[in-house]
Amino acid sequence: MVHQTCTESDIAGASFSIHPMSDQFIEIIKGALEEADTSKVHMDTDDVTTTVRGKLTHVFDVTKAIFAHAAKSGKHVAFEATYSLGCPGDSKGEAYLAEDEIPLNAEHVKHIKQRVAAKFSLYPLGGGNYMDVIYSQIEAMKQYVDVSHAHYATRLDGEAIAIFDGLEKVFKATVEGGSSHTVMTVSMSANSPSHRGTNQNE
Amino acid sequence: MVHQTCTESDIAGASFSIHPMSDQFIEIIKGALEEADTSKVHMDTDDVTTTVRGKLTHVFDVTKAIFAHAAKSGKHVAFEATYSLGCPGDSKGEAYLAEDEIPLNAEHVKHIKQRVAAKFSLYPLGGGNYMDVIYSQIEAMKQYVDVSHAHYATRLDGEAIAIFDGLEKVFKATVEGGSSHTVMTVSMSANSPSHRGTNQNE
Repeated sequence: MVHQTCTESDIAGASFSIHPMSDQFIEIIKGALEEADTSKVHMDTDDVTTTVRGKLTHVFDVTKAIFAHAAKSGKHVAFEATYSLGCPGDSKGEAYLAEDEIPLNAEHVKHIKQRVAAKFSLYPLGGGNYMDVIYSQIEAMKQYVDVSHAHYATRLDGEAIAIFDGLEKVFKATVEGGSSHTVMTVSMSANSPSHRGTNQNE
Repeated sequence: MVHQTCTESDIAGASFSIHPMSDQFIEIIKGALEEADTSKVHMDTDDVTTTVRGKLTHVFDVTKAIFAHAAKSGKHVAFEATYSLGCPGDSKGEAYLAEDEIPLNAEHVKHIKQRVAAKFSLYPLGGGNYMDVIYSQIEAMKQYVDVSHAHYATRLDGEAIAIFDGLEKVFKATVEGGSSHTVMTVSMSANSPSHRGTNQNE
């Protein structure tokens, strides 16, 4: 049967896309993928999205780095991701769970200044008080970045690195709080001509 | 409290983005938004996404039309959407529930030929046998387009119009099956240099 397979596992993953609104989109995407150190995750790119799988720390580390590298092109770049834990699909990337917890890209990208606007939604699946979990994690996010209401999502404004770090903390807290199958979607926009998220490196 | 507000309502909605990978992204986005007839939905565009709200039929009709108009530019265009019913956020668009069920764009776009590759995920929130609902709806999707497995999603290959129509049917069946809060995410790609989804109008 073809489906979103779900079994219990500690493997995390993300299906994501980088969309540079530029004629140079291929160069920007390829450059960002190459500049990030992805040696602690299983990564596979097809014509719709890129999938990364491994320890949660590395999944966030790699996606954060790839977005930061793409955004510093100064072009309008959108990032769209679905993070997931508890629904591995298969065991292909399980070997990567043997990696240590030390992120390979964090030091390299932490000084990149990039204002962004983002929207995220948290979906603790499998029932229970899922709305309470969502509300408490949105409250927690306020420690890290500016938080406001959006339709079907929560809006975040701030530095890209701070937002990714906040998303990672919120995702981890949801998993540690007992959610057996956690999904989080993120839309992020940098250098849009219609917003205040500008590249301060230029 | 700032949150993904949820109350019971029949209002559906989508938060979506069109990402043309082109220096002409503004013209393509604005042109597609203008070409679609959005008079039966509440629509609001900010710097991250566009939100449409109203009857489910019109939410799918409008998003399908906007994507089809953008893709016929021949540029590589990505579409990212989160459809939702049962989590309205507020009642701002409730007046639009008085509209009839006749879609305004379907006739105009149904002859647009556009091969695409897409990935979708269905999230019936609020507990219950949510994985059974997902599996049965993925099976149902096979009537409409080519279906295959992807990480954290189900892959669809075919004509854009057929895929949107299949997504609408699957979403409606999930709601009618008793899901009180239904979310569906969609990533779609047209005219990618790395895939077989080419614009057959050119």
